[in-house]
Amino acid sequence: MNIGIVGLGLIGGSLGWDLRSLGHKIFGVSRTEQTCQTAIDMGVVDDAGVNLNLLAQAEVVFICTPIAAIAPTVEQLIPHLSPTTILTDVGSVKQSVVEAVAPLWYNFVPGHPMAGKAESKLEAAQQNLFAGAPYAITPIETTPPEAVKTVEEIARALGARVYHCRPEVHDRAISWISHLPVMVSASALAACMSEPDAAVLKLAQQLASSGFRDTSRVGGGNPELGVMMAKYNRSELLRALHQYQLSLNQLIAQIEREDWDALEQLLQHTQQARRKFLSPS
Amino acid sequence: MNIGIVGLGLIGGSLGWDLRSLGHKIFGVSRTEQTCQTAIDMGVVDDAGVNLNLLAQAEVVFICTPIAAIAPTVEQLIPHLSPTTILTDVGSVKQSVVEAVAPLWYNFVPGHPMAGKAESKLEAAQQNLFAGAPYAITPIETTPPEAVKTVEEIARALGARVYHCRPEVHDRAISWISHLPVMVSASALAACMSEPDAAVLKLAQQLASSGFRDTSRVGGGNPELGVMMAKYNRSELLRALHQYQLSLNQLIAQIEREDWDALEQLLQHTQQARRKFLSPS
Repeated sequence: MNIGIVGLGLIGGSLGWDLRSLGHKIFGVSRTEQTCQTAIDMGVVDDAGVNLNLLAQAEVVFICTPIAAIAPTVEQLIPHLSPTTILTDVGSVKQSVVEAVAPLWYNFVPGHPMAGKAESKLEAAQQNLFAGAPYAITPIETTPPEAVKTVEEIARALGARVYHCRPEVHDRAISWISHLPVMVSASALAACMSEPDAAVLKLAQQLASSGFRDTSRVGGGNPELGVMMAKYNRSELLRALHQYQLSLNQLIAQIEREDWDALEQLLQHTQQARRKFLSPS
Repeated sequence: MNIGIVGLGLIGGSLGWDLRSLGHKIFGVSRTEQTCQTAIDMGVVDDAGVNLNLLAQAEVVFICTPIAAIAPTVEQLIPHLSPTTILTDVGSVKQSVVEAVAPLWYNFVPGHPMAGKAESKLEAAQQNLFAGAPYAITPIETTPPEAVKTVEEIARALGARVYHCRPEVHDRAISWISHLPVMVSASALAACMSEPDAAVLKLAQQLASSGFRDTSRVGGGNPELGVMMAKYNRSELLRALHQYQLSLNQLIAQIEREDWDALEQLLQHTQQARRKFLSPS
């Protein structure tokens, strides 16, 4: 199959690598000549260029730009496509993307592969990034079933676990397990840095070990990505954050009134809860 | 050197293993015969038993019990010790331990090796657990410098990075980098579980990937340990939690008023801050 990729970063580059290994012919488009050349040198694409007309022969095109650029990219891409081309995206928010893109292109399949790393550039691309990872596909009533099937087959060929859901259900679930953790983790880092005693802060930095490293990872990640989550999934994220404030207040109240039985029950509940997230049925 | 260890769990067992490899003779005491036998079979001690009089010949004794048992253990141990024996502990809170134990035994060196795992039992013990890990030693005015030097030399021989500080400075620093993250992470898990829509919750569990796994790890850990942190470091933890509420409220307000510039600045700040914790000067 001829597959196009617009946006050659971590996700676009990793997709290209795997899809090429699977025998597809990969055409990449990036804003800069330099990135196109790197993609060719790395072997993640068969050909790459800055002009979208490179994708005229593509049967499927993955839009792997930042969320804000998805709809504008589709608009620019349309004049170059054949009517049967399937478009799909990899944005971490789906409702706002579907609202903007579905009216532009009938054959659009909204998608979200849940694979990420701290680094977001092409140089961080790796093979088998999607193997074993969740891959959400969020069609709406007007999405052609044949197009959904094609994207799903590609996702499965990458080794991903495919889940189908409504865009709004996706965005609510993602607010819990991806966007809320970023804000919770960032707030913890910000609170640590507010310590007024320099000796305490320095010691905290020296003593920080694996627990702190894990908890702070997503809050110390790419700032632009964090802003995009908040901007494009704002109402769901705020809903999760307000519920989180209630949970936090409850825990603080237990410590304030020294209700150790209640605190232990809460921590037993969260210990059991975590297992359900890491080995879902 | 003859070294005693009271409490043969993850920390006590791992300490025994490394110290034995370094040529010391290790005597272990546990509440149960079964654990003593396991410790002997694993090779983490030279001898082990349930009676504290086994430690009569020890020059240094590590108290590796849960925090609540440290002072009662010292009280029971004292009749069996020679006056020159150095006692040290591994509790994650220091101020309350020092207040309880220093009046009981002159030669007491408060300590806290920062090495942990999800599992806390003897079976989880491993060699080189302390290599490269921080090890806080928190002497007070009356702590004999010779005793501090002996414990520090042992910690360095384990490969740990040793830091000296006041007990209250330790407890404040630890509230930021260890105890606050547990409560923040547990609250996030509790909030997720409050989602009323079963389909959303199930999808959240299916889509949870590495970011969620890392952020939820310490909040899904040992409930008894979480309660001990809150109970024995209550005032410092509450101070950190209240400051955290302010940081969280600020971030939520930025999202509410769609102040994306302020949010990006905040996330840039936390991204830079994290590096200071993971590669301290």
